[in-house]
Amino acid sequence: METIGHYLDQMRSASPLVHNITNFVAMNSMANVLLSAGASPAMVHSVEEVEDFAAISNALTVNIGTLEPAWVDAMCIAAKQMNSQSKPWVFDPVGVGATQYRQQTSKQLLALKPTVIRGNASEIMALAGLESSAQGVDGRDSVESAVEAARNLARQLGSVVAVTGPTDVVTDGERIVEIPHGSHYMSRVTTLGCSLNGVIAAFCVGQPSYEATVAAIAYYGIAGETAHNKCQGPGSFWVEFVDALASLSGDDVTSRSQVKL
Amino acid sequence: METIGHYLDQMRSASPLVHNITNFVAMNSMANVLLSAGASPAMVHSVEEVEDFAAISNALTVNIGTLEPAWVDAMCIAAKQMNSQSKPWVFDPVGVGATQYRQQTSKQLLALKPTVIRGNASEIMALAGLESSAQGVDGRDSVESAVEAARNLARQLGSVVAVTGPTDVVTDGERIVEIPHGSHYMSRVTTLGCSLNGVIAAFCVGQPSYEATVAAIAYYGIAGETAHNKCQGPGSFWVEFVDALASLSGDDVTSRSQVKL
Amino acid sequence: METIGHYLDQMRSASPLVHNITNFVAMNSMANVLLSAGASPAMVHSVEEVEDFAAISNALTVNIGTLEPAWVDAMCIAAKQMNSQSKPWVFDPVGVGATQYRQQTSKQLLALKPTVIRGNASEIMALAGLESSAQGVDGRDSVESAVEAARNLARQLGSVVAVTGPTDVVTDGERIVEIPHGSHYMSRVTTLGCSLNGVIAAFCVGQPSYEATVAAIAYYGIAGETAHNKCQGPGSFWVEFVDALASLSGDDVTSRSQVKL
Repeated sequence: METIGHYLDQMRSASPLVHNITNFVAMNSMANVLLSAGASPAMVHSVEEVEDFAAISNALTVNIGTLEPAWVDAMCIAAKQMNSQSKPWVFDPVGVGATQYRQQTSKQLLALKPTVIRGNASEIMALAGLESSAQGVDGRDSVESAVEAARNLARQLGSVVAVTGPTDVVTDGERIVEIPHGSHYMSRVTTLGCSLNGVIAAFCVGQPSYEATVAAIAYYGIAGETAHNKCQGPGSFWVEFVDALASLSGDDVTSRSQVKL
Repeated sequence: METIGHYLDQMRSASPLVHNITNFVAMNSMANVLLSAGASPAMVHSVEEVEDFAAISNALTVNIGTLEPAWVDAMCIAAKQMNSQSKPWVFDPVGVGATQYRQQTSKQLLALKPTVIRGNASEIMALAGLESSAQGVDGRDSVESAVEAARNLARQLGSVVAVTGPTDVVTDGERIVEIPHGSHYMSRVTTLGCSLNGVIAAFCVGQPSYEATVAAIAYYGIAGETAHNKCQGPGSFWVEFVDALASLSGDDVTSRSQVKL
Repeated sequence: METIGHYLDQMRSASPLVHNITNFVAMNSMANVLLSAGASPAMVHSVEEVEDFAAISNALTVNIGTLEPAWVDAMCIAAKQMNSQSKPWVFDPVGVGATQYRQQTSKQLLALKPTVIRGNASEIMALAGLESSAQGVDGRDSVESAVEAARNLARQLGSVVAVTGPTDVVTDGERIVEIPHGSHYMSRVTTLGCSLNGVIAAFCVGQPSYEATVAAIAYYGIAGETAHNKCQGPGSFWVEFVDALASLSGDDVTSRSQVKL
């Protein structure tokens, strides 16, 4: 594996166009995260244009946070377009344990074999069909308890699976790595998980998806640590975090990364 | 009545899941306000899942800021679900005086007897069928002029009614209290009123709705005062406000509250 | 032409109600920008009420960033309402080069002769039917290359056309002016272009549209310069920018403006 910073530098030099079909809560934050990181975001969701737009994008993210039937159709169309062009796409099963509708939708999307799946422990366990104490969109299961589910899911689908929480874990079914970066404020600011999907997708453009996912999450967590040290609370954390995503260089990230591959 | 801070502490220890069917403008801000205050927010609106999600939530907010027919259906379904489980829900009649459609929708929702109704003076007067000089979503009527309307509305529906503005007033039809906290910046930052709905809903979980509403508004206004003293304008006000929502303790709020019950 | 600051002062004393049918990403930011500048924003999009709401608004903005058929219908209804009342409306052809659907929608809206059209160079060139290397919603064409397209478009439609980018250009088909204000951070924060539409619309209420557009863009760029000098990155740029929009007086703007008319 190259250094973590190498993957960041490559992403920035490509400045990929990331097409996002995400929830209403996340759209603005996610766009700012992607711009600060160095990618180019776009949010496009209608069936009238989603296939055309996916065709000119470099990567896609799909997030079921605020679902509607027409949006589900669009998600499937866009994901198929990415598959047909061998471009990466990231699936975030937000609150999948909460309703039957999310479970049905997630099944449809899993059948399209996402390049990367990212969720909290409860969501990954729900996806894997394991018992879970999922409440709404917050995860109440520990990352550790979801590791086995993640590994099974990764093997079954050929996807990279990332379980995020106090510690993040990434697996491709064979390899597995812990990423010990981040800040507790990251769960006190809305849609930081959703926004991470976009960063992962951007890193995956032209780079191997397992390494790219690990590098994206490490970079994101290190930016969180920078922000943690400067902020006074969740409001200023967000401001510092967006600044840190832009200011951190590839070398900064490499030297601070504690990821062991 | 317990101290204001007691209601905050109780809310935080419960960390209720608050289901919000709110406008597109408010979603991100509201989620951040709820997370900072100590509650757990979720935005879910489609008829395919709204009943299921309401069933696992502790409280609901309904806001007509950006209406569509399918959303109105979802609002009614979710409100009925809360009523059937005796869980609190808060209704915000944004810009009700502006269009016939908002008036019709508000009538449907009022018929479901919200636990709490929160609006500016023009909105509460429009709801009560009084004459109002409502322009769009900004209130041009004074809080004082809406007090009688609020009291009538509260009596008629058995709801708590909160009129917010430079001074806030809360009534249950019998009791009435003024809350002299806040900052003029709170009308210069978008969706602070909408976001307050979520905080009120969170405070109402397991606590009496009149006292909980008063305590939520006092806490919110005191956080506004903290932010006011630290900010340079509306942009930095928002950042300081979110920080203050997280940093204020129950004791802080109790000692600073000037609410007389 | 009056001073730049005069147009700002007039806008603030009118505090116009600006009705926005804009994309989901921009709504919150745009509302905050309008409030800080001194206008009154509202986001209303459903066909059930959009005509009623446009009728009581002072100006309209239409933005095709996140399109759906029902929204396109609403855009046309609202634009016609503004035309019938001789009120200004601003059209932003976000990513018009990216999909057929955006091109069709833009044609419908151009036929209604917007008061002002604002886009980046690629978007204005695509609108004018010229060749363009548009990628998604980022412009890759230079402002200079779009000037001829802008002039033709302005003449053909009788609109004011603004091309924004590192340097901004405004033309009414006869007159043309460059506006050399702003900061490179303005392309690193999402929806600053979208939000500018609202400020232009607000300035156009009761003021001549060419001069009002120039003044709005100059004011916006000068606020960007203030923020640039105080920020540490794109996160803090946004905070400082919103503060600057509120704190700059008409006199400040006049004395700092380098616009030559």
